Amino acid sequence: MFSTIIDPKNSGFPPHFAPPALKLPSGRIISQTPAILNHVAPKFGLAGEKEGEDEEEARSTVNQLVLTALDLNNETHDTHHPIDVGDYYANQKEAAIAKTKAYRASRLPKFLGYFEKVLESNPEAKTNGGTYLVGSTTTTADLVLFQVLDGVSFAFPRRIAALKKSGKYDKVFALKERVGGESGIKEYLTSGRRQKYSEGIFRHYEELDGEE
Amino acid sequence: MFSTIIDPKNSGFPPHFAPPALKLPSGRIISQTPAILNHVAPKFGLAGEKEGEDEEEARSTVNQLVLTALDLNNETHDTHHPIDVGDYYANQKEAAIAKTKAYRASRLPKFLGYFEKVLESNPEAKTNGGTYLVGSTTTTADLVLFQVLDGVSFAFPRRIAALKKSGKYDKVFALKERVGGESGIKEYLTSGRRQKYSEGIFRHYEELDGEE
Repeated sequence: MFSTIIDPKNSGFPPHFAPPALKLPSGRIISQTPAILNHVAPKFGLAGEKEGEDEEEARSTVNQLVLTALDLNNETHDTHHPIDVGDYYANQKEAAIAKTKAYRASRLPKFLGYFEKVLESNPEAKTNGGTYLVGSTTTTADLVLFQVLDGVSFAFPRRIAALKKSGKYDKVFALKERVGGESGIKEYLTSGRRQKYSEGIFRHYEELDGEE
Repeated sequence: MFSTIIDPKNSGFPPHFAPPALKLPSGRIISQTPAILNHVAPKFGLAGEKEGEDEEEARSTVNQLVLTALDLNNETHDTHHPIDVGDYYANQKEAAIAKTKAYRASRLPKFLGYFEKVLESNPEAKTNGGTYLVGSTTTTADLVLFQVLDGVSFAFPRRIAALKKSGKYDKVFALKERVGGESGIKEYLTSGRRQKYSEGIFRHYEELDGEE
């Protein structure tokens, strides 16, 4: 387990602000989720399938979409800790209820609408089924959006059911199904190796959920 | 001016969630500050001075530090909009006062302490004056930390004065002086071309500032 500020004596330079962190084969440790994903994406064929001069640009586009999906992740976290990340939920419940109302009504639909537009406007959407954010191969952007949607569905099942029913975000929900059914990911999800949601970023509090 | 979701018909694929965005020579537009910085850093010699196999790793380390400085940026923004980014400050002032109290007491010192540790533990600190986050050349991480410190100093002058006086973050404040005095940056800062702080991320509300 990482301490919040990892001791540089044990982890090399620089120290790290918070988990997660990844140790590279060289011994160097990289923290910050988007930095880790951007570093490993090309090594696993998850940075868009372009080659040559276009490779770096496709990688940055994937990075851009990862960062936006993680912005939704962070806003979702903040719904239950709007005042002080170092204090208990119970001590900021009133503010959490107010923040979550705005999140459910405005922020969440705005993010889903944005990703629906990305999926719709992918030039390859007509031939790939419309569930790939970039090109026609799985990228880290697809994986992060899948994970965030899964977490939001755990935290706000009533709101997500209503948004699904609206029919406005069909491609976004189809992406979630497609990624969750991919070979390897499907087996992982049902393996028991995946940590259950509990007191982390995605929390289910009945009083924070609602159809609207 | 960008609309919030840039129309893909006018900006190519994909659309963008929010400004800023940068148009590349190829015509492709990249949004999300960390994605833009990570894309351009190597082209301007701002990604650490390593070469060969170590180049990508140094770039990712710089990216990691940029992301952490931007986390402080985002938490600073949220002090005046803790409940609803779509509503006025006046309508969430009480929650803002509560959030800012925790920000001033815990979050801000935690970030400054982290960057002080990074500066201290840079293996080249003994020979470069100790004001470079990575190696001995200016990186995007230095530039972002400078900008965030500058904004926080505008928003919370009393708190920053007290933190400066504590002597615990001398290297961090020395970095701010060093970057602000660099050739090119110095001229820009005094040129009148730089936008003044007003109703953006960094806002000064007397009731949100304090020595502690």
